[in-house]
Amino acid sequence: MTADGPLTAVQYGIGPIGSRIAREAHDTGYEFVGAVDIDPDKRGRDLGDVADFGEEVGVTVTDDVEEALAEEPDVVFHSTVSSAATAAPQIEEALAAGADVVSTTEELAYPWWRNPDVAADLDAAASDHGGTVLGAGINPGFVMDAMPAVLSTPLADVDGVTVTRVQDAAQRRKPLQEKVGAGVTVETFEAEIATEAGHVGSTESVAMLADAVGFDLDDIEESIEPVVAEDPVATDYVDVAPGDVAGIRQVAHGYADGEAVVTLDLQMYVGADDPRDEVDFDGDPDVSVTVDGGYHGDVATAAVVANVGPSVVAADPGLVSMTDIPTSFTRAV
Amino acid sequence: MTADGPLTAVQYGIGPIGSRIAREAHDTGYEFVGAVDIDPDKRGRDLGDVADFGEEVGVTVTDDVEEALAEEPDVVFHSTVSSAATAAPQIEEALAAGADVVSTTEELAYPWWRNPDVAADLDAAASDHGGTVLGAGINPGFVMDAMPAVLSTPLADVDGVTVTRVQDAAQRRKPLQEKVGAGVTVETFEAEIATEAGHVGSTESVAMLADAVGFDLDDIEESIEPVVAEDPVATDYVDVAPGDVAGIRQVAHGYADGEAVVTLDLQMYVGADDPRDEVDFDGDPDVSVTVDGGYHGDVATAAVVANVGPSVVAADPGLVSMTDIPTSFTRAV
Repeated sequence: MTADGPLTAVQYGIGPIGSRIAREAHDTGYEFVGAVDIDPDKRGRDLGDVADFGEEVGVTVTDDVEEALAEEPDVVFHSTVSSAATAAPQIEEALAAGADVVSTTEELAYPWWRNPDVAADLDAAASDHGGTVLGAGINPGFVMDAMPAVLSTPLADVDGVTVTRVQDAAQRRKPLQEKVGAGVTVETFEAEIATEAGHVGSTESVAMLADAVGFDLDDIEESIEPVVAEDPVATDYVDVAPGDVAGIRQVAHGYADGEAVVTLDLQMYVGADDPRDEVDFDGDPDVSVTVDGGYHGDVATAAVVANVGPSVVAADPGLVSMTDIPTSFTRAV
Repeated sequence: MTADGPLTAVQYGIGPIGSRIAREAHDTGYEFVGAVDIDPDKRGRDLGDVADFGEEVGVTVTDDVEEALAEEPDVVFHSTVSSAATAAPQIEEALAAGADVVSTTEELAYPWWRNPDVAADLDAAASDHGGTVLGAGINPGFVMDAMPAVLSTPLADVDGVTVTRVQDAAQRRKPLQEKVGAGVTVETFEAEIATEAGHVGSTESVAMLADAVGFDLDDIEESIEPVVAEDPVATDYVDVAPGDVAGIRQVAHGYADGEAVVTLDLQMYVGADDPRDEVDFDGDPDVSVTVDGGYHGDVATAAVVANVGPSVVAADPGLVSMTDIPTSFTRAV
């Protein structure tokens, strides 16, 4: 909350995640002053209608970014693409309008490893305009990187850390079940799914967590493999026979001096029997932390983005990561 | 690490906790340039000897605070008393010497609720001298306040939060087993232990966590009761018969509009059969997080203090809490 009232916001991108973010931010008390989407079916409609606020808010969705930013919002919630390079010019427009930016672009969660030039340019643009840019979300951005970093605070030493996120895809949307290959054969998975199904952001999470706990990484490697069903699984959308694919397992390792010091193990498949987020430190002492059931992907990303707004507005200008700012649930803005 | 080398530090208070902090900080790479203690048995000796570094560091323990601070350290690790009012003038001396201060004074973890005048004075002194003051430790300071605050980041709503910390006192030092009344009768507990055994800092933790997640508290209430042994328990120091006291249970509630919205349940007794730190959110969605076995008290406080140093040095001037700064394990300073 500023002296003039609640924080003002613009929603930039109103797809499935952007809609949830806008709705969550509206519930938190942000005052929307603009909304951008290129979809002709959304243009010209009220943001509250497009994003299911349950009420109209007097903000018309436009594909004209300059028009959407005209009211100089405090913060822009940016949710358009996964690629840092593609997102950067959109974010620079928001910075030029005087806004701070929270983006769900996965590669911006920690762009210094894989996109150092984009990171340098965005940091310079943010500093020039006195704005802050943060890549945020549940994963990347919290559960496999920023959360383990915070949980390492009471340790006297950290030799290695493994984060395991197991999600039951049966609880998720149909496109996600299809994306992870639920119900296809292993052959089809290898031919059609493996190259497309991967979660974007594992490399960024490894780099973020390694940086936070001070590992100087030489290399990050990712692998992806099918999780094969042992028993039949039926969801609302698909039937999986034993021997067919239930989903994916994606493992990323960060190496320092040839040792895998950071391991992120992401499993998303239908019928997962112990869904959870688990952090295991090999250190002094060993510590194991479990989020029973795991944080819910879509709900949690929207909540993270809405909740970090005040912290991003308060932060010094520049490009930051979720490990650079304090975070918590935010009751009102 | 500054341009001139590692962060320099002074240890102010070299009791059991202060010794651990100094040792942990030494291992992390802080360069000690002074050390203060009033104990005649420690004065005149090398800090590395007093605090069991395994080596001398050329720093002589003194009871002359001005002398200890003469080298203008980057950070002072302060560990002398639980009372904010008693600690404040000591901390102001450190601020006047140009240092940032990390203190284990329990009431300084979040002094705005119970010691608002001390908080205002320390904040003013910190701002005047361009320094930062942080109350830190595992509890208060992390496991029942700052950690749950961070874990609330992915929630869309928080109606209430309960933090349960169960510790097996049999694994702890003899003075702690005596302090919690292990082995005494319930009558003796009520007469002699209940008023003395209480953990200091529960009120501060309730207030810190409530502030972080935006509850506007009307009141905080604490209660303390004995945990009575059902079966015999033998530790290295004490035998507890069934019906006698195994330790304490201390519960603190924070109330908003008459509802207990924050509950901290601290149990420390010999023979505890499921030691853990557990955070349960009643919210959207419900979330339950468990630290298996729980963070170890003494080790963890020293680690937290040593690990937050760089974040405190980087923070803006003023009095802050653990929910105001980013934290993680710190490999080197």
